[in-house]
Amino acid sequence: MKKTVIEIRVRYVETDQMGVAHHASYFAWMEAARTELLRKTGMSYRAFEEKGFHLPVRETYCRYRTSLRYDDVMTIEATLLELGGASLKIGYKIYKKGENELIADGYTLHPFTDTSGKVVKTPGFFRSLFNS
Amino acid sequence: MKKTVIEIRVRYVETDQMGVAHHASYFAWMEAARTELLRKTGMSYRAFEEKGFHLPVRETYCRYRTSLRYDDVMTIEATLLELGGASLKIGYKIYKKGENELIADGYTLHPFTDTSGKVVKTPGFFRSLFNS
Amino acid sequence: MKKTVIEIRVRYVETDQMGVAHHASYFAWMEAARTELLRKTGMSYRAFEEKGFHLPVRETYCRYRTSLRYDDVMTIEATLLELGGASLKIGYKIYKKGENELIADGYTLHPFTDTSGKVVKTPGFFRSLFNS
Amino acid sequence: MKKTVIEIRVRYVETDQMGVAHHASYFAWMEAARTELLRKTGMSYRAFEEKGFHLPVRETYCRYRTSLRYDDVMTIEATLLELGGASLKIGYKIYKKGENELIADGYTLHPFTDTSGKVVKTPGFFRSLFNS
Repeated sequence: MKKTVIEIRVRYVETDQMGVAHHASYFAWMEAARTELLRKTGMSYRAFEEKGFHLPVRETYCRYRTSLRYDDVMTIEATLLELGGASLKIGYKIYKKGENELIADGYTLHPFTDTSGKVVKTPGFFRSLFNS
Repeated sequence: MKKTVIEIRVRYVETDQMGVAHHASYFAWMEAARTELLRKTGMSYRAFEEKGFHLPVRETYCRYRTSLRYDDVMTIEATLLELGGASLKIGYKIYKKGENELIADGYTLHPFTDTSGKVVKTPGFFRSLFNS
Repeated sequence: MKKTVIEIRVRYVETDQMGVAHHASYFAWMEAARTELLRKTGMSYRAFEEKGFHLPVRETYCRYRTSLRYDDVMTIEATLLELGGASLKIGYKIYKKGENELIADGYTLHPFTDTSGKVVKTPGFFRSLFNS
Repeated sequence: MKKTVIEIRVRYVETDQMGVAHHASYFAWMEAARTELLRKTGMSYRAFEEKGFHLPVRETYCRYRTSLRYDDVMTIEATLLELGGASLKIGYKIYKKGENELIADGYTLHPFTDTSGKVVKTPGFFRSLFNS
C-alpha cells in the first residue's frame, strides 16, 4: 500500500490575519496524512513507536501554489516516494475537495531511529509492510 | 519568589482571520510565563521534570477583555495563587506593554504527578522553593 | 438544533513531551465542534462572518479529568447552553470514542460583534436558527 | 540591513511526544526572525501590510540536522538571500545559543502581493530599505 488520500477541514485556529490557512498548518496536515498512510500498511505509527522506533523529520519542503480558507475541505494524497536503507521519503499533494487545481505539494524525509535518536537501518518488517 | 513578569511579542502564526491573536495562543503564553515563574524560584520546570515530576494541567480559565494584534508586545504577570497539598494554582494577567488596561486574565490549576501520571503530594523541596 | 457531536483524531503535533495531547489543543477541538454546531443550524460560521458578524471569544474554561494520546479518536459534544441578548455560551464534553469516561469538559462564551469588534445585539436571524 | 539574529526559547507547547521541538514549530520561529529582519530595515512587516502589501509564503524548506528541547534557547539568523523582481527569498540558520553546531537551516520564498493576493512587482521603497 504505497498511497493514501484523506480529507481535512481547515480549522479557524489554522488561519492567520491574511485570511488564509497559515503555511505551518500544512505540515500538521501532511503529518496526519502520513499517519493514515502508515495505518493502511497494517501497522500504525503509534504501534511502530511502541516497538521502539521513531521517524523524526530530517527535511520538509512545501510549495504553496494557492491558498486554503477557513472551513475549506481539502484532500491530501500521501505517497511513499522512496524507502531507503535507513530512511523514508513521502510526497504530498493537497487539493480542495472536488477540484483539480493543486493547492500545495511537498515532501518530508525521515530517518529511522531508535528511541534515543540514533539512526538505524530500515527495519525488515517495515519494508515488508510496504511490499505487500 | 511568588510572582514574575515576562514580555512576549505576538507572532504572525498566532493570529487568525479575525485579525487578532487567537484565544488558544494565550495558553502558550501563560505556559511560558509559568516556566519563568518556576525558574525564578531556583529550580526550572525542566529540572523539576528531570527529577521525575510533572505538573499537568487540570483546569484552565481565561477571560479576554480586549485583544492583541500581530507584533504587539505584551507583559504577562504570573503569580502563585495557591500551593495546596497536591496541587498548584497560578494566576496570569496580560497587558499590552506600557499600558494599564488589562487585556486578559486567567488561571491554571496543576496537580503534582509522577511520570506515570499518578497524583502525588506537593514535594517538600518544591514548597521550600516558594517559601524562600 | 442545540447539540452536535463530532469525532477528531489526536494529531502528533498536538502532543507534548509529557506524551499526551497538550491542553491548548482542546480549544482548537472545541472550536471545530462549535463550527459543526453552527453548521447544523443551517448557517455555517463562515457564512455568518460573511454577513458581517464575528463571535470572538470572551471566556474559555476547560477541566481536564484525564488525558488523550496521539492517534486516539475522541468524540466532542457541543451544546448551546445560553443564547443571551448579545452573547452565546457553548458547552463541550470530550470522550474517548466508544467510552463513557469523561476526558474533559468546558465552555466558551462569545459576544456578538460587528467586523470592527463592537458588541452588537444577538441578530434576530441567528436566534431563529436555534429556535427552529 | 541584510541579516539579523534573534533568540527564542523553546516553549513546552512546541514539543511533541518524541521529547523534542516539533518540526512545524521551526516555521513559526523563522517567521519571528523574518519579522525582526524586516523591522531592522526601518519598516516593520506590520507597517508594510498596513501600506496594502502582503508577503505570503510560496515555498518553505527546512533541514533538521539535530533537535531542540523544551527550554533550550536558540539563536536564529535570518538573511536576505535574494530580492527578485516580484519576490523575496530569506535564509535561516538555527543554533543552540552559545554553540556552533547547526541545528537546522532552511529558507522561505515570498511573492509580493496586494491585499487581494495578486502578485505585484517588488515595491521601489522596499528595495530601498534593503539597499540602504
